[in-house]
Amino acid sequence: MGNKLSAEFLGTFWLVFGGCGSAVLAAAFPEVGIGLLGVSLAFGLTVLTMAYAVGGVSGGHFNPAVSVGLVVAGKFPLASLIPYVLAQVAGAIAAAAALYVVASGKADFQLGGFAANGYGEHSPGGYGLLSALVIEVLLTAFFLFIILGATHGRVPTGFAPIAIGLALTLIHLISIPVTNTSVNPARSTGQALFVGGWALQQLWLFWLAPIAGAALGAIAWKAVGEKD
Amino acid sequence: MGNKLSAEFLGTFWLVFGGCGSAVLAAAFPEVGIGLLGVSLAFGLTVLTMAYAVGGVSGGHFNPAVSVGLVVAGKFPLASLIPYVLAQVAGAIAAAAALYVVASGKADFQLGGFAANGYGEHSPGGYGLLSALVIEVLLTAFFLFIILGATHGRVPTGFAPIAIGLALTLIHLISIPVTNTSVNPARSTGQALFVGGWALQQLWLFWLAPIAGAALGAIAWKAVGEKD
Amino acid sequence: MGNKLSAEFLGTFWLVFGGCGSAVLAAAFPEVGIGLLGVSLAFGLTVLTMAYAVGGVSGGHFNPAVSVGLVVAGKFPLASLIPYVLAQVAGAIAAAAALYVVASGKADFQLGGFAANGYGEHSPGGYGLLSALVIEVLLTAFFLFIILGATHGRVPTGFAPIAIGLALTLIHLISIPVTNTSVNPARSTGQALFVGGWALQQLWLFWLAPIAGAALGAIAWKAVGEKD
Amino acid sequence: MGNKLSAEFLGTFWLVFGGCGSAVLAAAFPEVGIGLLGVSLAFGLTVLTMAYAVGGVSGGHFNPAVSVGLVVAGKFPLASLIPYVLAQVAGAIAAAAALYVVASGKADFQLGGFAANGYGEHSPGGYGLLSALVIEVLLTAFFLFIILGATHGRVPTGFAPIAIGLALTLIHLISIPVTNTSVNPARSTGQALFVGGWALQQLWLFWLAPIAGAALGAIAWKAVGEKD
Repeated sequence: MGNKLSAEFLGTFWLVFGGCGSAVLAAAFPEVGIGLLGVSLAFGLTVLTMAYAVGGVSGGHFNPAVSVGLVVAGKFPLASLIPYVLAQVAGAIAAAAALYVVASGKADFQLGGFAANGYGEHSPGGYGLLSALVIEVLLTAFFLFIILGATHGRVPTGFAPIAIGLALTLIHLISIPVTNTSVNPARSTGQALFVGGWALQQLWLFWLAPIAGAALGAIAWKAVGEKD
Repeated sequence: MGNKLSAEFLGTFWLVFGGCGSAVLAAAFPEVGIGLLGVSLAFGLTVLTMAYAVGGVSGGHFNPAVSVGLVVAGKFPLASLIPYVLAQVAGAIAAAAALYVVASGKADFQLGGFAANGYGEHSPGGYGLLSALVIEVLLTAFFLFIILGATHGRVPTGFAPIAIGLALTLIHLISIPVTNTSVNPARSTGQALFVGGWALQQLWLFWLAPIAGAALGAIAWKAVGEKD
Repeated sequence: MGNKLSAEFLGTFWLVFGGCGSAVLAAAFPEVGIGLLGVSLAFGLTVLTMAYAVGGVSGGHFNPAVSVGLVVAGKFPLASLIPYVLAQVAGAIAAAAALYVVASGKADFQLGGFAANGYGEHSPGGYGLLSALVIEVLLTAFFLFIILGATHGRVPTGFAPIAIGLALTLIHLISIPVTNTSVNPARSTGQALFVGGWALQQLWLFWLAPIAGAALGAIAWKAVGEKD
Repeated sequence: MGNKLSAEFLGTFWLVFGGCGSAVLAAAFPEVGIGLLGVSLAFGLTVLTMAYAVGGVSGGHFNPAVSVGLVVAGKFPLASLIPYVLAQVAGAIAAAAALYVVASGKADFQLGGFAANGYGEHSPGGYGLLSALVIEVLLTAFFLFIILGATHGRVPTGFAPIAIGLALTLIHLISIPVTNTSVNPARSTGQALFVGGWALQQLWLFWLAPIAGAALGAIAWKAVGEKD
């Protein structure tokens, strides 16, 4: 179990450091910044790369909503859920701390949103609570559906990290303007702890909606995809 | 059959929600928007991801023109065509509705083109009817040719979703300025229903041209690629 | 042989229509254009997709320099070289014609450079003859080296189209500002015929340099990579 | 051994010519430049493509830090380390020279930073020494962790170049603004020799930090991922 939790810690660290790091450090760099497209690619590649690296160790969840969805789908033991979630949240917090150290090492540093997730006046594009709820539920549901489909025995082994990583890229391409894209409560928690205030007050949504969506996606998969 | 139709419904939902969603929500976001490149990537990744997820269930068409092309190529039974097309169109309409809910949840929301397809004065770049017809026929023809080639027994299993998804990305990289890129009558129909007026009046082209192109591509494949 | 030549015709058509099409139609679209990054991706994806589709039919060269390099490496019969090159050039010309039809279908159409290759005052970034020669030779040499490596028996089957297609993307990421990137005499010829004048006068370089580079790359591969 | 060193020379040449070449020639091209996203993609694709081409010959390190990390992990003989590093540095210098020839072939050429790595006032975004150290150590550690994971027997053969190449893309998406991204002492050395002055004075960090990070990543892998 120790190896699995270490793998989940490191995988979630990488997801948050890479995804939020690209957003904080490189997205809006003058003239040549990577933009939301670059950030979307970065989030997806964190999962693609670490799923290859430690997918065979821990399953490569890196996300409490994914762990919950896999429990609902009957692919992951309930008894392991709490330790996994704790390792994921710890990894996310450590990554946010490391990112803070790096990002603050310039003269004109300002914390800003620090890639935290939000809705209403803290939505990047000013989208309200309903939009945030709908899109986080929907996108996490499809994320789980794709995870369960791509790891099903019908798909040749080796391709799942590509499908799953690029699904996360796609999810960010759609939804960064709405909520800054969570679909991952650990990722939201790490950044919110550094931003404080509004980010902590809105954090409930980024636990509730991704987990509800993940359960929904797992149920949909069992109904539609599981059997031939 | 129920599972197959559900898979086609969900896959086409994902194609429209992801592709048109990225266009509506994120393409023109100030300073850091994903642009037409991000939208092209999003459309392709919807197909790549859902083809891994449910390609083994329904074949992963997500597009009436693809279903028609596969019938012409002799790879899909004519008797299943109508149910598949209905499931695809239903999925596209549901996705357009879900996108409308999310997109309208901001103070300064304007429907605009809502990623509908058009030509003439409704072409993003002002291209006329002939340009629209030629490019939709041509791109759908190559799309089918690539689908049939990448799923042929000569190609090792597992790679087809990469080839087919990225073909759809490529198609969008070329043609968004001309017609906003259809190559998929279901995708065009869902958005047109919400835009109404001109979008419904021009919808015929986005059924006719993709389907004609798909048939052409299937015929070309049978002549060139089927046998060694 | 007919199937092979048809496959080379269609593959080169796709390369030119997709690559040059994205450049002409979408690269500089206001605000949300795909830029040189999108064009680079498009060129690579034309090869990735058609290599999956017809790589098993014709080998998937789509480029006279590739065919020459494979002859030098002893992987392709000299007797097939001329027919292949003719099919490739015909496909490129047909694609340039189709692109002309589409692109000219707008009120304010101007032919401009039409994605033709050039150096000196016709280099996008104003690079001179030496820069053009060096980069076209070098990049085509590495292109062939990668093609020969990725199709060697050491690499599991199925991955070559990814390696080769993305190599072409990489090549464009580096060199569009220098020569608009050729590494493919057929691609250069199709566009030059429509631009005429300077493009035809400079066309010699885009036959000479890619072919010389391809031969060099093939020789390097035989020295370095062929044997264990 | 000769073939292996030639493969490392060519692979590192390609990494530097492609990665730094895209940065110098195309990143800031007016209006349609590829930006830091394009440069990130280019660096990753150099490794992806050459790992397919010569991974089976030399292992495809192309980076002294990678070679050191593999020695620490017990995957590469210490006796081969010095020859590998020399071949890599020679390849990087040759690439920088070739890039200089190409880049200087325009009327208004200015050497500028020439894609050299730096910190403090030579960091693209003005990040200080601590930020540079932390990020170079951290990113190289994860790079090695991913390399060791993706080449482990648990992962089906053929996917490692995708995971490793795209890991390098991800690393650049995060960190170009901080140090211009090294994680590779050879890449830093080639460019620094042409820039001279500050680039040579700061070069120590881009040997120290990547090598320390690589060792750390290898140790972490042995603890977490090696055994089931």
